[in-house]
Amino acid sequence: MTTVFAYAAPSASGELGPFSYEPRNLRNDDVEIKILYCGVCHTDLHKCRNHWGGSQYPLVPGHEIVGKVARVGTSVTKYKLGDVAAVGCLVDSCGNCRSCKDGLENYCENAPTLTYDADDRKDGKRLYGGYSESITVRESFVLRVPSGLDVKSAAPLLCAGITMWSPLRNWKVNSKSKVAVAGLGGLGHMGIKLAKGLGAHVTLLSRSPGKATDGRRLGADDVLITTDEAAVARASNRFDIILDTVPYDHDVNPYLSLLRRDGNLVLLGLIGNIQATPLNTGPMLSARRSVSGSGIGGIQETQELLDFCAAKKILPDVEMIAIQEINDAYERLIKGDVKYRFVIDIESLSKVRG
Amino acid sequence: MTTVFAYAAPSASGELGPFSYEPRNLRNDDVEIKILYCGVCHTDLHKCRNHWGGSQYPLVPGHEIVGKVARVGTSVTKYKLGDVAAVGCLVDSCGNCRSCKDGLENYCENAPTLTYDADDRKDGKRLYGGYSESITVRESFVLRVPSGLDVKSAAPLLCAGITMWSPLRNWKVNSKSKVAVAGLGGLGHMGIKLAKGLGAHVTLLSRSPGKATDGRRLGADDVLITTDEAAVARASNRFDIILDTVPYDHDVNPYLSLLRRDGNLVLLGLIGNIQATPLNTGPMLSARRSVSGSGIGGIQETQELLDFCAAKKILPDVEMIAIQEINDAYERLIKGDVKYRFVIDIESLSKVRG
Ligand SMILES: [Zn+2]
Ligand SMILES: [Zn+2]
Ligand SMILES: [Zn+2]
Ligand SMILES: [Zn+2]
Repeated sequence: MTTVFAYAAPSASGELGPFSYEPRNLRNDDVEIKILYCGVCHTDLHKCRNHWGGSQYPLVPGHEIVGKVARVGTSVTKYKLGDVAAVGCLVDSCGNCRSCKDGLENYCENAPTLTYDADDRKDGKRLYGGYSESITVRESFVLRVPSGLDVKSAAPLLCAGITMWSPLRNWKVNSKSKVAVAGLGGLGHMGIKLAKGLGAHVTLLSRSPGKATDGRRLGADDVLITTDEAAVARASNRFDIILDTVPYDHDVNPYLSLLRRDGNLVLLGLIGNIQATPLNTGPMLSARRSVSGSGIGGIQETQELLDFCAAKKILPDVEMIAIQEINDAYERLIKGDVKYRFVIDIESLSKVRG
Repeated sequence: MTTVFAYAAPSASGELGPFSYEPRNLRNDDVEIKILYCGVCHTDLHKCRNHWGGSQYPLVPGHEIVGKVARVGTSVTKYKLGDVAAVGCLVDSCGNCRSCKDGLENYCENAPTLTYDADDRKDGKRLYGGYSESITVRESFVLRVPSGLDVKSAAPLLCAGITMWSPLRNWKVNSKSKVAVAGLGGLGHMGIKLAKGLGAHVTLLSRSPGKATDGRRLGADDVLITTDEAAVARASNRFDIILDTVPYDHDVNPYLSLLRRDGNLVLLGLIGNIQATPLNTGPMLSARRSVSGSGIGGIQETQELLDFCAAKKILPDVEMIAIQEINDAYERLIKGDVKYRFVIDIESLSKVRG
């Protein structure tokens, strides 16, 4: 056990900077991972700036973690030194509730333990995320990175990827499905790639015509500009599922009428009240449509995603940064100026160690 | 062909009174039904008073119709003179869209033809409902009333019943299901009986403790008073499905947290904006819950319902009235003063004929 160097937010208003902490003693079922890459998720920014309230500082963000196994506890059987491994948004859960037993630890009824800005389930100690040299996690919450997957760009699969994969699988998207993805950011660009990977017909829904070219480059078969009322009217009853990644209160009513009977509008980014434009239930009753929510995914389906992406050669589009660039990266994130995910090369942290 | 006597609303503000009209010439696939009983649905009141806009007068309401086959067209094979038959909310649909082909004519993508305040699909003539001596309907939209079903109280199955049955079947309610029914009116009381008939554990959700006794009498295993915050908190993650029959804008958020993971809040009465209290999506994302809509049902499942109710001896609780009492009945309907459905004894119309 040796001091771990990391980057942390010191307060809701302070910039991220160097921080160090003592890791916990390795438990029998622990895997210590030397972190190579960590994706930058919007949640990191929200947590650092306390947008949702309740953040505790210093706060080391990061839950899209890829690295190499550096140590294993005495009872660990699935991982050995040097294995390429990953950690996502969860590091523990109750293990006893219906959701845990179903392999959906993300929906643990006793609240899953998040990777950072959370307390360890056993000793109550503060948990720090992936903007760090290393992380120590229970074996059962560690993912295997298949050899076919590029370690440099795989990290965003651990949050952005699984957040899209889980609803695609839950609502049984296949080669006969018509899928729409609303919003083209970190989540949206993975939604297009994964739905295409499953063989579906994929349409990007966007307010801005400027996104059309990129949408098609990422694999979308079609682009529907949602400010074009005539085009929206023509597209009614078209989609089996819409993955709505727009991360703020917005008018979801135009999306509802695009769904076929029994279709699902799955909200992935809008957490909070639908109030700027109230939800109108008319299109729901007239065609048995649903508005659903989905949040990240379970461990088993995250492994399935990594294996699927390795087999299908699907990878996020990433822009590599050094940890020293993180504060600028957050400003660019706010402006939507990233295609489509920043990944921190954690090697850059070695300069902090000095 | 002979003049048909009926009761009609002459305008949005006028009381219902005697009216007569000439029926259409019997088509080859038509079944003419001499009406015995007709249920009184909230929709009748809304339509008569133009609450939803677009009502055309004179308007003969009524879409919970039970009677005897009086005449059949030359190509009719399923019905013969004297058969006990029924008509619900639909009398035609396009027959070609995906929903029609799936036997869900209620969701016809080219708009199903409603039983009244609508125009016939072939000749464009005005259609009149069940507050009438007779009705003429295409064979494929006529239901068979099984001999085991009491004709006097069966009528409300055609709208209130199927509106509850369709979601119970669509979301696969069975003896392992935990079902909640919100609101105890025409729809709600059928929801309790039908969910019990399917073997489910049924809870009535109500704001008023006064409904508890009746809820249990109708078959509810449990009653949850939704103004009791402690009881609501204890019931979180309890139900697979909530059938929400409350027919106006209301706060659905307390219901959402009562659902288990993957649970469905099915809206059956709230048509319009959810705005008095905006929908909060937090509980949807945290447990993959859905808010869905459902509207009446298809012909095939309506027949299934009638057969099920005959076999299980399930019947609506009705209060029989004469057509001359209809205006008073509407006033009582507004006050919720009916247990749980008025049914018009159409024999009373014979006095109008004089
Ligand atoms: Zn994330
Ligand atoms: Zn759990
Ligand atoms: Zn009705
Ligand atoms: Zn149709």
